[in-house]
Amino acid sequence: MKIKQLSSSDANFSAELTALLAFEETADEKLEATVAAILSDVKNRGDAAVLEYTSRFDRLTIADAAGMELPRAELRAAFDGLPVEQRVALEAAAARVTEYHQKQVQASWRYEDADGTLLGQQVTPLDRVGLYVPGGKAAYPSSVLMNALPAKVAGVAELIMVVPTPDGLKNQLVLAAAYLSGVDRVFTIGGAQAVAALAYGTATIPKVDKIVGPGNAYVAAAKRRVFGICGIDMIAGPSEILVICDGHTNPDWIAMDLFSQAEHDELAQAILLSPDADFIAAVAASANRLLEQMPRRDIIRTALENRGALIHVASLDEACEISNRIAPEHLEMSVEQPEDYLPKLKHAGAIFMGRYTSESLGDYCAGPNHVLPTSGTARFSSPLGVYDFQKRSSLIQVSPQGAKTLGKIAATLALGEGLQAHAQSAMYRSEIN
Amino acid sequence: MKIKQLSSSDANFSAELTALLAFEETADEKLEATVAAILSDVKNRGDAAVLEYTSRFDRLTIADAAGMELPRAELRAAFDGLPVEQRVALEAAAARVTEYHQKQVQASWRYEDADGTLLGQQVTPLDRVGLYVPGGKAAYPSSVLMNALPAKVAGVAELIMVVPTPDGLKNQLVLAAAYLSGVDRVFTIGGAQAVAALAYGTATIPKVDKIVGPGNAYVAAAKRRVFGICGIDMIAGPSEILVICDGHTNPDWIAMDLFSQAEHDELAQAILLSPDADFIAAVAASANRLLEQMPRRDIIRTALENRGALIHVASLDEACEISNRIAPEHLEMSVEQPEDYLPKLKHAGAIFMGRYTSESLGDYCAGPNHVLPTSGTARFSSPLGVYDFQKRSSLIQVSPQGAKTLGKIAATLALGEGLQAHAQSAMYRSEIN
Repeated sequence: MKIKQLSSSDANFSAELTALLAFEETADEKLEATVAAILSDVKNRGDAAVLEYTSRFDRLTIADAAGMELPRAELRAAFDGLPVEQRVALEAAAARVTEYHQKQVQASWRYEDADGTLLGQQVTPLDRVGLYVPGGKAAYPSSVLMNALPAKVAGVAELIMVVPTPDGLKNQLVLAAAYLSGVDRVFTIGGAQAVAALAYGTATIPKVDKIVGPGNAYVAAAKRRVFGICGIDMIAGPSEILVICDGHTNPDWIAMDLFSQAEHDELAQAILLSPDADFIAAVAASANRLLEQMPRRDIIRTALENRGALIHVASLDEACEISNRIAPEHLEMSVEQPEDYLPKLKHAGAIFMGRYTSESLGDYCAGPNHVLPTSGTARFSSPLGVYDFQKRSSLIQVSPQGAKTLGKIAATLALGEGLQAHAQSAMYRSEIN
Repeated sequence: MKIKQLSSSDANFSAELTALLAFEETADEKLEATVAAILSDVKNRGDAAVLEYTSRFDRLTIADAAGMELPRAELRAAFDGLPVEQRVALEAAAARVTEYHQKQVQASWRYEDADGTLLGQQVTPLDRVGLYVPGGKAAYPSSVLMNALPAKVAGVAELIMVVPTPDGLKNQLVLAAAYLSGVDRVFTIGGAQAVAALAYGTATIPKVDKIVGPGNAYVAAAKRRVFGICGIDMIAGPSEILVICDGHTNPDWIAMDLFSQAEHDELAQAILLSPDADFIAAVAASANRLLEQMPRRDIIRTALENRGALIHVASLDEACEISNRIAPEHLEMSVEQPEDYLPKLKHAGAIFMGRYTSESLGDYCAGPNHVLPTSGTARFSSPLGVYDFQKRSSLIQVSPQGAKTLGKIAATLALGEGLQAHAQSAMYRSEIN
């Protein structure tokens, strides 16, 4: 396996880094047209269209619209049927994720100014949320927990899950996770037709206020198109890890951390930054030795050879600067005093601090969310959280005295903008008292 | 003027309300193609393309790229040149908006679990933000304050404003507001070419992490397209007000409040809900009487006749239910005890409570932001705020003991998902101690 080796002291390092990070979703016009047609069809014909697409794409014939819904008893049976070890692990993960996300709940707030005018924000949960869960190989129960639990913690009243079951095959772990997370209703539909059903509503499937969860290119395109009709979470790119290591962590551990990202997907990106050239060589050796034990070695090799890199840097401080330029989804600070580097780290979805904190612990059960901004979007966005399932209304109650003070200011500014009704509306309140 | 009168007791009220609220942005393929071409051209040719489009669309020939930037002294001169009353009003508004938004600053947080594992989130400001300000008739200095001040309060290091100056005409109030808000740099460019310059960066115009601010259809389409390359704020639809009144507010005041929304735009929507039929008649009479005094009466009439309504409801509680269905941008609760209704109000951009709180006071100077979710998007989104200019990174530092506990859970779940490298990476940390 040949993983690219770079050095930050090379004259063309900056250009090499840019090339390494380059990734652009290619716009697929045929896919866009297909998705647009499906959305419009479901919007117009509702359940009938959803059933037809499900029959065509998932080879699944459902007799009537009500048959799209899985009975709650089936979710419970899936949960009860789990091997004990898996059930215990899933419960432990759910408890920790719930505890962490409870710290994110935002409360309403208000204050009164000197004039007795009340100002604040009322924070409320979304009414109804749709959770997309992919079928097939990318069906991860941990993903159900990570998307559903923050919504439940926020107080979302109704959580609707859609999951395609191609050829009728159901993933029992996913259904068990849905049961454990308190998902309210589950429909066995997927693709753009499921996104359309959630966004517009049908006779059977309730219209939701926001759609979250990962999906393939059709699902992503459909989510982009319904944005504005309902809310959506971010559109995720390939997963990434950046490891910064001082050279004193077991190189096998670091190699395996790079693997754990690379095994997701041939487009996944795993990069190591270290000021220790010998350590970089040791990690490369570990990677070559460990690769053969990995059942997913072909994916790992492709990802690491095409998009991975081992980069020699001048110092850990320089590594932090490079990390800020990358704005990675996952950042491992495998160093002695990770705390010292926090003030220097500006952009990252999640920061895994210290030698014991493998990224995989965060993926499953440490508590924080594993839905994180990819492709450098950590520059401006955040991990999925309870705040994504709450919204705010400004509160303003102007006192009679406040109306006097504010009325003059507002009227002056409104007249400056040529908006006389605004000015008059403010002056009425100001003149009366 | 004929404003539609409806009653919630009519058999077809629900359908009438749906028709009243119906508003869909029509996709304009020619506009989309134009915008796509401009974005790609600016991405490839940078400043040269921006200068060409500025010459073509704004009839403004700028000698070289550096000439796009307004010197800071010119902003200051605009501020110093304001009539005293306007300057005082602008300063008072800025002070109140700043004070309110300071309450929105989110702090980093962390906690330690029983195993000594540290968990939390680091909250940091965005590095650089672009603020789009329209030229011409919709150029509002209040909009500069409302977009710029939350970014400054969040700690954004660099705030770049773009404002087109067609034919070289500059709006002095807008420049003064930019000076007062602490905008760092101002470029006299607009349209899709300005959005492209901010999203991709050029030799002269710095690439930003997020673009906020209102604009025309070209600007909105460009923002949608660059979303993901940088962050964007919401895409605003026509402005709306919903007034709920118990019938005891001066009908002239309520008529003027409806006008103040209607005067924005022929597509603006102003609706009154009241259980008092006589009051509705009085408001209709006030509106007819007051209309002729309004300089913008033609816009007001068109908006109110086409998209306005006076709706008789059974009770104030029913009015709250209807309001939740509408999810209005602005909601005036012109009633005796507005506080009592807050728990019933689920979706609204801003709630203006009590008879003294005209919407226009909130537009300019009460403190809360006037950038609010429109077209029912208050179901899932929030007023622009400091939180839009901050982002979060999850923090995880697993203790040796925690690695033992968590490693087993993570490994069990990872194996259940078929991800062996994830499992091994967790197990390394778990076995060692």
